[in-house]
Amino acid sequence: MALNRQNNIYVISLSSAIQNAKSLERGVQRLAKLGFSCKVDRHALAVDTRFAGTDAQRLSALNRSLKQTAPTVMASRGGYGVTRLLNQIDWHAVADSGKRFVGQSDFTAFSLAMLSQTGSTSYLGPTVCADFGASRLNTLTAELFGEVMRGELEILSFESPNSDAVDCRGVLWGGNLSMITALVGTPYLPKIKGGILFIEDVAEHPYRIERMLIQLAQSGVLAKQKALVLGQFTDFTLAPHDRGYDLSNVIKWVRDNVGIPVVTGLPFGHTPVKATLPIGKKVGLATEQGMAYLVIDEHIHD
Amino acid sequence: MALNRQNNIYVISLSSAIQNAKSLERGVQRLAKLGFSCKVDRHALAVDTRFAGTDAQRLSALNRSLKQTAPTVMASRGGYGVTRLLNQIDWHAVADSGKRFVGQSDFTAFSLAMLSQTGSTSYLGPTVCADFGASRLNTLTAELFGEVMRGELEILSFESPNSDAVDCRGVLWGGNLSMITALVGTPYLPKIKGGILFIEDVAEHPYRIERMLIQLAQSGVLAKQKALVLGQFTDFTLAPHDRGYDLSNVIKWVRDNVGIPVVTGLPFGHTPVKATLPIGKKVGLATEQGMAYLVIDEHIHD
Repeated sequence: MALNRQNNIYVISLSSAIQNAKSLERGVQRLAKLGFSCKVDRHALAVDTRFAGTDAQRLSALNRSLKQTAPTVMASRGGYGVTRLLNQIDWHAVADSGKRFVGQSDFTAFSLAMLSQTGSTSYLGPTVCADFGASRLNTLTAELFGEVMRGELEILSFESPNSDAVDCRGVLWGGNLSMITALVGTPYLPKIKGGILFIEDVAEHPYRIERMLIQLAQSGVLAKQKALVLGQFTDFTLAPHDRGYDLSNVIKWVRDNVGIPVVTGLPFGHTPVKATLPIGKKVGLATEQGMAYLVIDEHIHD
Repeated sequence: MALNRQNNIYVISLSSAIQNAKSLERGVQRLAKLGFSCKVDRHALAVDTRFAGTDAQRLSALNRSLKQTAPTVMASRGGYGVTRLLNQIDWHAVADSGKRFVGQSDFTAFSLAMLSQTGSTSYLGPTVCADFGASRLNTLTAELFGEVMRGELEILSFESPNSDAVDCRGVLWGGNLSMITALVGTPYLPKIKGGILFIEDVAEHPYRIERMLIQLAQSGVLAKQKALVLGQFTDFTLAPHDRGYDLSNVIKWVRDNVGIPVVTGLPFGHTPVKATLPIGKKVGLATEQGMAYLVIDEHIHD
């Protein structure tokens, strides 16, 4: 892979403070090996209590990222912090910059706010520290990131057991379920009709996942979607008093009470394997014989 | 205190399963000593995974409670489960029953839905198992419950350090913050203007409390209130990477970013001491010299 400006990445911190500068360094090195040359914003390692700098520092990092030359702007990590900034960000300046923004988890708020305010696409996928800077880099995550950034990935296929039959097209949106529901009622939740909504979460008990899905149902969001795609729900602990209640009960309840197809198995979440997904882009989705196919880019082949 | 029908209570389970039948028995005995005679619904001890019976069982318990003779209907405990039932409850039948409903925590969804759908008042306060059935009954909680049920409590006064100056009247509403925010965007969040909003929560990290408050701010709820009253926030764990960020930072952020008075110290939460508070009732609120005064009932004295 040739190093050219198209592969340059500008790294910013919008959320929680980076715990270990080594992970940033390692992430930058790994991205370089994959052909992506990173420039790290001067406030990326800033610390203000649990945040990666004060609100003003994180906001100024975003504003600098709009003016530099790299076409891709990538979040160092997730955590918490974007929420505080939502009403201070000039979303049209963000969209007009033409940059590709990539992040995850807390960054869901950024992607969805950008989509709601401007209709522009951004990406949920790996972050510099948590994925590329992990002690062990997941090769599939790295490959998918590279392919999506270079516009090479046409179809993401994945095992999808017990999925409903679906063959549709719609705007892909979603991300971290806690962040999606935290935007309900605010101006920053995009009003998507006929969309394909994907969700994931970490360290949320199934009853909380259910409560969040009921909020999306009762606020009218779910019924407007063509499909609900389940990513990975990880790191929760069931208790003896759950008496067998778990994520499968939640999915059954959603199926019984919300009339949209449910598709399982999306390789996305707080897991080593994660796809890079375009938020706000029209995509296709189909299931067949235990597999699901997310058509991310329909290239015209001569 | 004379035992009369006005002091009868019908006990139902709408949320999580009762873990220990002893706590129900003890709660009923303690209430009897206070002059309240309980009748326990036949499904109160039902169990279906983590719930106090199936959705249909919990719904039928509520419907039975409307038809029996006791004027007060009290939740056995909180947990999770009301959310599932919200769109299956006949709210006008609930309001038209003229019963006084009392519960806490998960029951916030019941009280707020009832208020949004009918404008009727209910109560957040102690529950039969968690409070009256606790190994040790808090006498102040018991006294306040009795006084409010008998219409004797005119003013609830409490220590209120660092509160903003306020002297206002408005509809009292609120409860568990997680439950309030889970209703944002749904038909079950009452649209209260000029209200007095009180909140509490348990086992939620301050950054999550902040995120919920930002949702209430960004959805336009906070700015419409005359005051935000903080109950007790308990059982969360701060981490080294919080670096001093805690609830006081959240309150500071709210003060800096939301232009309504903040009043601290309300004796309400997942704590042994809890007031019984009328949801949907017009009350007064004033602060003076480190104290706050919630005027619950303005009696006319001859």
